[in-house]
Amino acid sequence: MSKILIIGASGTIGQAVQANLGARHDVITVGRSSGTHRADLSQPASLAALFAAVGRVDAIVNTAGNLHFGPLTEMTAEQFNLGLQDKLLGQVQLALLGHKYLNDGGSITLISGVLSIEPIRNGANATAVNAAIEGFVAAAAIELPRGLRINAVSPTILTESVGVYGPFFPGFEPVPAERAARAYQRSVEGGQTGQVYRVNA
Amino acid sequence: MSKILIIGASGTIGQAVQANLGARHDVITVGRSSGTHRADLSQPASLAALFAAVGRVDAIVNTAGNLHFGPLTEMTAEQFNLGLQDKLLGQVQLALLGHKYLNDGGSITLISGVLSIEPIRNGANATAVNAAIEGFVAAAAIELPRGLRINAVSPTILTESVGVYGPFFPGFEPVPAERAARAYQRSVEGGQTGQVYRVNA
Repeated sequence: MSKILIIGASGTIGQAVQANLGARHDVITVGRSSGTHRADLSQPASLAALFAAVGRVDAIVNTAGNLHFGPLTEMTAEQFNLGLQDKLLGQVQLALLGHKYLNDGGSITLISGVLSIEPIRNGANATAVNAAIEGFVAAAAIELPRGLRINAVSPTILTESVGVYGPFFPGFEPVPAERAARAYQRSVEGGQTGQVYRVNA
Repeated sequence: MSKILIIGASGTIGQAVQANLGARHDVITVGRSSGTHRADLSQPASLAALFAAVGRVDAIVNTAGNLHFGPLTEMTAEQFNLGLQDKLLGQVQLALLGHKYLNDGGSITLISGVLSIEPIRNGANATAVNAAIEGFVAAAAIELPRGLRINAVSPTILTESVGVYGPFFPGFEPVPAERAARAYQRSVEGGQTGQVYRVNA
């Protein structure tokens, strides 16, 4: 039984990942305002405190991250930077710091999203951040020591989120969060590294 | 004759772009410490001052941008953020602010780099930032008004830079900066948008 840290455990994907991985592993939940431990991707100090408290684990799984959505022509650098500091740098920090707490052969699984390769209106920040995460995973994989692995899961819009986000994703076929959770399972229990698991209909 | 703003005009690619575009257009040079105007990608206020001083142009061309290079296992979030704030957010700001100063049908050309899809050791920041720039260009292209266009040029290692950077790019075939300049010409004088012009041997 592996010890797995799930950041964003209370979210739609986080709950599905918890249900999947929790059936076979010792899962430790982390959230901004719920979970066994509290941490915020945009606060590097909270991630350092998280790892100091939890100690060594076999897998780090993240399902969280905030982005800025809005029209390009009204977007400011400050708004764009919100996504850089949260979903991008927060997840990078999870890897830069977290790999030191992984047992040999352990894995890191980050989240990007379909917008990395399929832009939508209002989504310039999301596309840039998700593409950066996919790039980071490919690059980090060739430098991680001790057989450590790193991958990203890139889901399309979720069935559970169509009510809220559907209008922004015209014609995109949604997938249930349970399918995204299987991609996390492939990353954690499989042997690949530097991969992006795309979860589309 | 178009009016073209070249940021990073004194660099290796900048000089080649200046030679290419300057033969047919009115070129305005911008640099951190040289050129007709001074600006620094990592200082948003300097970009605002630049556009206020220059006024309307037909094309904005950037060849500059700093990144962090170093081993992944020693990298800090602060170091990673340097590339986010300079080459990534600086160029994003060039687009967010600069498109308002472009004449109808004008263009923005940013720079990414071969590491976006070909990671090297010590290059995790470069791969993430370059991938983000390519994503941003694809996404921004679908929202720009008035026939405005945006593209990126992604050069491999330059012949002129092999002496300094060659050891970091084992087996990569270099290209002369003059070839990168032709990609900028394609972006500025051509009709495409949302493209990444890859300049490889």
